[in-house]
Amino acid sequence: MEGEKIENFIPHLSFDCVIFGFNGTALKILILEYHDTKLFALPGGFVGKNQSLQDAVQRGVKERTGLDQVYLDQFQVFGSLERSDSEAMKQILQASNEDLEKNKWMLDRFITVGYYALINYEEVTLVPDRFSDSITWYALDELPALMMDHNQIVEKALTTLRRNIDEKIVGMNLLPKRFTMKQLQNVYEAILSQPLRRTTFQRKMLSMDILQRHEKLFTGTAHKAPYLYSFK
Amino acid sequence: MEGEKIENFIPHLSFDCVIFGFNGTALKILILEYHDTKLFALPGGFVGKNQSLQDAVQRGVKERTGLDQVYLDQFQVFGSLERSDSEAMKQILQASNEDLEKNKWMLDRFITVGYYALINYEEVTLVPDRFSDSITWYALDELPALMMDHNQIVEKALTTLRRNIDEKIVGMNLLPKRFTMKQLQNVYEAILSQPLRRTTFQRKMLSMDILQRHEKLFTGTAHKAPYLYSFK
Repeated sequence: MEGEKIENFIPHLSFDCVIFGFNGTALKILILEYHDTKLFALPGGFVGKNQSLQDAVQRGVKERTGLDQVYLDQFQVFGSLERSDSEAMKQILQASNEDLEKNKWMLDRFITVGYYALINYEEVTLVPDRFSDSITWYALDELPALMMDHNQIVEKALTTLRRNIDEKIVGMNLLPKRFTMKQLQNVYEAILSQPLRRTTFQRKMLSMDILQRHEKLFTGTAHKAPYLYSFK
Repeated sequence: MEGEKIENFIPHLSFDCVIFGFNGTALKILILEYHDTKLFALPGGFVGKNQSLQDAVQRGVKERTGLDQVYLDQFQVFGSLERSDSEAMKQILQASNEDLEKNKWMLDRFITVGYYALINYEEVTLVPDRFSDSITWYALDELPALMMDHNQIVEKALTTLRRNIDEKIVGMNLLPKRFTMKQLQNVYEAILSQPLRRTTFQRKMLSMDILQRHEKLFTGTAHKAPYLYSFK
């Protein structure tokens, strides 16, 4: 979407990113809205002919959202013929006063590589790019209709995140360095979108042997204070 | 590798397949050897401009190996700049008397989508395509040096297979409909490449609640016969 010439990019290939944010209680997703089109989409982009896929994704996410160094994991390639929508692309280009002829490669059929990440959304500042009105966090159950197959991409990302929940949470530094069992349970509940039993959850977490127990949280009333944990 | 014109294919994009075979005891991988080049590679191919990725992979695997309807799972996209090797591609085209000029798009940089499957290799007949001398099963610890980054792709496929071992084995119909605990353990041991304790393995499998127990295997000496199981 950088309004760049086809010569610089691999045609027919794009990436799209599902960036999940967590603020301690709720799980949300980053969505772009395009100028004057009422079109909503995941942040994404194209791959330069002389650029690694990894670099393309990192630079793309920075340009579209202002987020720097988000760690994104590939989760699936979406390659059906039906997924592309040249009409929507045309609207976006026109609303941004981009030359349709020069950018007509963007109207072609695209295979897209899906990425996802989990970040702490209170720690980031969002900056929309020049194609977008806004970039905003949407709660999972309040997502607007997204362009092309982006709603399906979100669904699939969520399925993958749920499947990989244990390693993802450890890897993502989503929590402060030291956290309570209750905070950890909040993350799980937001992702799995269901309440968990405190005792069962605690037993599972302790049996996974990934947590280190520290002193109790200082609350003033020591006898009821919860323990703090960190990942080993 | 079909010697086709660039007009028909998405440039810079390919797929490669790691097809694991299991015969009841050993785990092997399908490798192609190209005519007169001593170049070994994973079976792969390109995606038609008017073809879904899924169709491209299924047709490609059939053309390159003779295998029909292998269920393949995407596991990773390999997108570094360094992975391509135009010299190797040139050798393959020349050895097959293909027109270099007409096929020079094959010498470009490629991003490849990695797929893997697990099949019963005693049930299949292999047929090499016109570019290849042979298509052969190689034991994991006897793989030749493969072209480009194909050895890395195999490593990554194996890591993924090990991680997904439980669901993969259930999904892949790798065993006869009814099997003994010992047969199931053989599959796991071949994939994990390490011996497992019989009692621990059995307890784990039963606790996963995926097995249905049937009558004992008929061996003639009923008191020592093992039970048969099937997946629920």
